Amino acid sequence: MKIYVAQQNYHIGNFTLNRDKIIQAVEDGRKAGADLIVFSELSVCGYPPRDFLEFEDFMQQIEKTIHEIAQHSHGMGILVGAPTPNPQPEGKDLLNSALLLYNGKVQGIVSKSLLPNYDVFDEYRYFEPAYSWNCIEFMGKKLAITICEDIWNLGDNPLYRVCPMDELMKQKPDLMINLSASPFDYDHDEDRKEVIRLNVKKYKLPMIYCNAVGAQTEIVFDGGSLVCADNAVIAAEMKYFEEDYLLVDTGNLAGKGDTADATSHHLMTADMRVAKTDDPDTIIAYLTKENNIAQVKEALVLGIRDYFSKMGFTKAILGSSGGIDSAVVLTLAVEALGKDNVTAVLMPSGFSSNHSVDDAVALSQQLGNPYHIVPIQPVYEAILGTLDPLFAGTAFGLAEENIQSRSRGNILMAIANKFGHVLLNTSNKSELATGYGTLYGDMAGGLSVIGDLYKTQVYALAQYLNRPKEIIPGNILTKAPSAELRPNQKDSDSLPDYDVLDRILYLYIERRKDLADIIAAGFDEALVKRALKLVNASEYKRNQFCPIIRVSTKAFGVGRRFPIVAKYLS
Amino acid sequence: MKIYVAQQNYHIGNFTLNRDKIIQAVEDGRKAGADLIVFSELSVCGYPPRDFLEFEDFMQQIEKTIHEIAQHSHGMGILVGAPTPNPQPEGKDLLNSALLLYNGKVQGIVSKSLLPNYDVFDEYRYFEPAYSWNCIEFMGKKLAITICEDIWNLGDNPLYRVCPMDELMKQKPDLMINLSASPFDYDHDEDRKEVIRLNVKKYKLPMIYCNAVGAQTEIVFDGGSLVCADNAVIAAEMKYFEEDYLLVDTGNLAGKGDTADATSHHLMTADMRVAKTDDPDTIIAYLTKENNIAQVKEALVLGIRDYFSKMGFTKAILGSSGGIDSAVVLTLAVEALGKDNVTAVLMPSGFSSNHSVDDAVALSQQLGNPYHIVPIQPVYEAILGTLDPLFAGTAFGLAEENIQSRSRGNILMAIANKFGHVLLNTSNKSELATGYGTLYGDMAGGLSVIGDLYKTQVYALAQYLNRPKEIIPGNILTKAPSAELRPNQKDSDSLPDYDVLDRILYLYIERRKDLADIIAAGFDEALVKRALKLVNASEYKRNQFCPIIRVSTKAFGVGRRFPIVAKYLS
Repeated sequence: MKIYVAQQNYHIGNFTLNRDKIIQAVEDGRKAGADLIVFSELSVCGYPPRDFLEFEDFMQQIEKTIHEIAQHSHGMGILVGAPTPNPQPEGKDLLNSALLLYNGKVQGIVSKSLLPNYDVFDEYRYFEPAYSWNCIEFMGKKLAITICEDIWNLGDNPLYRVCPMDELMKQKPDLMINLSASPFDYDHDEDRKEVIRLNVKKYKLPMIYCNAVGAQTEIVFDGGSLVCADNAVIAAEMKYFEEDYLLVDTGNLAGKGDTADATSHHLMTADMRVAKTDDPDTIIAYLTKENNIAQVKEALVLGIRDYFSKMGFTKAILGSSGGIDSAVVLTLAVEALGKDNVTAVLMPSGFSSNHSVDDAVALSQQLGNPYHIVPIQPVYEAILGTLDPLFAGTAFGLAEENIQSRSRGNILMAIANKFGHVLLNTSNKSELATGYGTLYGDMAGGLSVIGDLYKTQVYALAQYLNRPKEIIPGNILTKAPSAELRPNQKDSDSLPDYDVLDRILYLYIERRKDLADIIAAGFDEALVKRALKLVNASEYKRNQFCPIIRVSTKAFGVGRRFPIVAKYLS
Repeated sequence: MKIYVAQQNYHIGNFTLNRDKIIQAVEDGRKAGADLIVFSELSVCGYPPRDFLEFEDFMQQIEKTIHEIAQHSHGMGILVGAPTPNPQPEGKDLLNSALLLYNGKVQGIVSKSLLPNYDVFDEYRYFEPAYSWNCIEFMGKKLAITICEDIWNLGDNPLYRVCPMDELMKQKPDLMINLSASPFDYDHDEDRKEVIRLNVKKYKLPMIYCNAVGAQTEIVFDGGSLVCADNAVIAAEMKYFEEDYLLVDTGNLAGKGDTADATSHHLMTADMRVAKTDDPDTIIAYLTKENNIAQVKEALVLGIRDYFSKMGFTKAILGSSGGIDSAVVLTLAVEALGKDNVTAVLMPSGFSSNHSVDDAVALSQQLGNPYHIVPIQPVYEAILGTLDPLFAGTAFGLAEENIQSRSRGNILMAIANKFGHVLLNTSNKSELATGYGTLYGDMAGGLSVIGDLYKTQVYALAQYLNRPKEIIPGNILTKAPSAELRPNQKDSDSLPDYDVLDRILYLYIERRKDLADIIAAGFDEALVKRALKLVNASEYKRNQFCPIIRVSTKAFGVGRRFPIVAKYLS
């Protein structure tokens, strides 16, 4: 059987676009001689549709779109993902399904059994799991069709009580097909290959794994769809971070003899999904590993590009401070949107050092993007003057620092509103974690580009962007980080060195280590207490922050949910 | 058996406070002659603990606290709610449990079967449901103990596949006890009484229902714990919106003879939880029903008070515009925090009418709270002057309107930062729904007080607050709503009349009606399309908004989750 794997970038709720994209692939597959075309999870509506699923009309649009796609299935199978009504009266109203369309009709439906409900996933909010399992026969072959998470239940501490492939094996299938919407993080590609090989080794069947690609607000789907022969050798790996198509002859995947040695022999455990090191001495090396940073760069560029194109925007604006964070965001935005579409605004104050403007100008000259210099001193002084009746006699402090930051926010938003830009935020994960930022000031923006990268990772990304040729001026990489909101201020006046802080934060946020564990790992007790308290007490700030392009196993935002009013380590 | 029902206000993660509160009630119950003390769902850690449950130390603190409470159980039963480890290797690591402590030990554990995972609830994120059911014997009686949602599965379209009370009935219990953390909305108290009566009618057993009280950020628990005799008569109803304690002799609840006629004879359906009218002619009457508005007022006052006390703040600040929204918020805040703790800031611009300042001054004089008049014209002009090189030649527009709003936001936050206030937000639900507000301007603030009330409800609440004596000046209630950001501006320049808009919004947001349904209900097609498009296209703004005290069946925020990057009705 010839299978055409379609790795596509959908737009949630944009049924016309998704339908046309799917039908185009069907016609391309037909020309290429395919018998069956495979699409990714919830391809018809895009993943994740969230509470749109509670609207009957949304479900009717899905049904209508499936019907339109089915018109193109004469003599050829189309396997698409979509929510379908739960035929049972009990339980949630919907199932997360794969539908086999053939000769104009729905020939078979299978539904997802293992519904992820952790991190960014909320599938139990909408879907009832499948409680029965059937292979679908197509062209004389029995297809064991699963959806994403369904193949991730292996090992000694499963998150779920059933194993769908074990059930499907009772019907002696010939081939495994998995429809996924599996989000990127900088470790996930290796996990994914491993779990597919482990499934193939266990069931001794080839597998075709079709993933989505493209960013949906904060979640980036990285593609990398896979074809695995029955000896557990990856026969084909599709492109990452872009659409891709592949014709596979299943005859070449079966009967390959002995199972290849997969790279690891351990069974899959729940912990495989989270990053790999708890050793404090190797965390920085792990966080800044070149291969990961290279993938992160691709993910962020795609994240920016898809946010703008899917929201219908073309132009970005950002505050360019001469610091490393805004330099990296500006460089990525120029790659994603084109240099003419990214405006940098340099907003020096009386506390800005000379090099701040010079470095920011040099960067924009290097990138070729438009920039404006808009000093904030008159605005800052007007606000201080206005508040003088209230503030007279008080010392310069946090309020005055924040006034500067919010004056910049106001100026940026005014230009954005006037000329139709979207403000890109430049906060990093170390700042967001510790609350080292000003609400409505430097925390303003429509999309956070590097909010899931610790400061040490921002440096590593800057160095990566400067290869093979220097784009970000060397001075930006070497000077000490500073918010420049008071004379001679340095980040290190308020925060521990990032090399120490980022390791503590990583252990707490990504690895969910407790206070005592982190202290036991060799960090100063007072410092760890202070860092964790800052994280917990800053929840109210992050709660008002924009979406962050997710690249780690635990990003702030939709995948990390803490009560604001709480008293724990705070 | 004598049972002491303890309806308490917990603080998430504040184990010392929760423990001391629970032990105090135990000792009070002991003095009153109780055999058993009943607390609410997850009383030990507070509800909802969210991702704190992923930390081992958090679970250890819970275990330690349970142990400390158990030391007070000599000769007396204590029934507390807490997460417990799932003894099975498969599935989520935790169960949502009730523990019977007696003579210093855990004598029995039962766990929740029906895990709500809709609206504000995410219980599948943390908990595995119970798959087996056992009554707990205590003092010769068999107790059928359930947790919150467990008793809500009645009727013809159940959300779940099991009915825990049906299972428990197989062991012939003597009494039903339910531990709840059931959030307030302005219909929920009637639903709750109804479901308890329906359970009692079905199982012919008395029920003791212990609910939590107090606000946890956006979610308000309203108390109102209930005791129901086996004839389905409510024998006792505990206080709403405050802590309360009650000693019940179960001997007085059983053998009451014929089942009383419950107010309704229909079975409970999933739809009972959502509000009651789809008739466009009765929506406004429903939304502004005096009994509901009275409860809403109590919920908002408690919501403000608990946010401040649990966050460790005492002082609030807000922008007082002379409009109805800020007048209502100011009045509620003064009741919640005391007049000396609420500072109003009046920030007229060149576009403000004279009455704006006069009305706001009159209100603060009436309430007796401190206020400042801080004109924004110098700040506004400084920003315009600074931007003149970029804006020269462009017409006055949205950018200039937003500059004014954000100047006010900047001034309010500066005063808040300087003097340690928390900024109360004054946006209403009609504005938040349609995006009629300025990010970082009037959308700024730490807590939204009336963000779950449509404008028509804000008026009804203002009228309610003015009884028996006028607090909010009559002119504030009668003048046309205006943002006063351009000459002679009225809300009605940009938005439909609130009487029409609010009904469309209610049908879309609370009732999840589709475009076609709302048009079919008799509203103008173009208007409905525009309103729904505004709602969907404003998701990115609401995503950066502060927590909203939830009083309806569908508030913006954690209980309503939509993709930002989507194209559906937008």
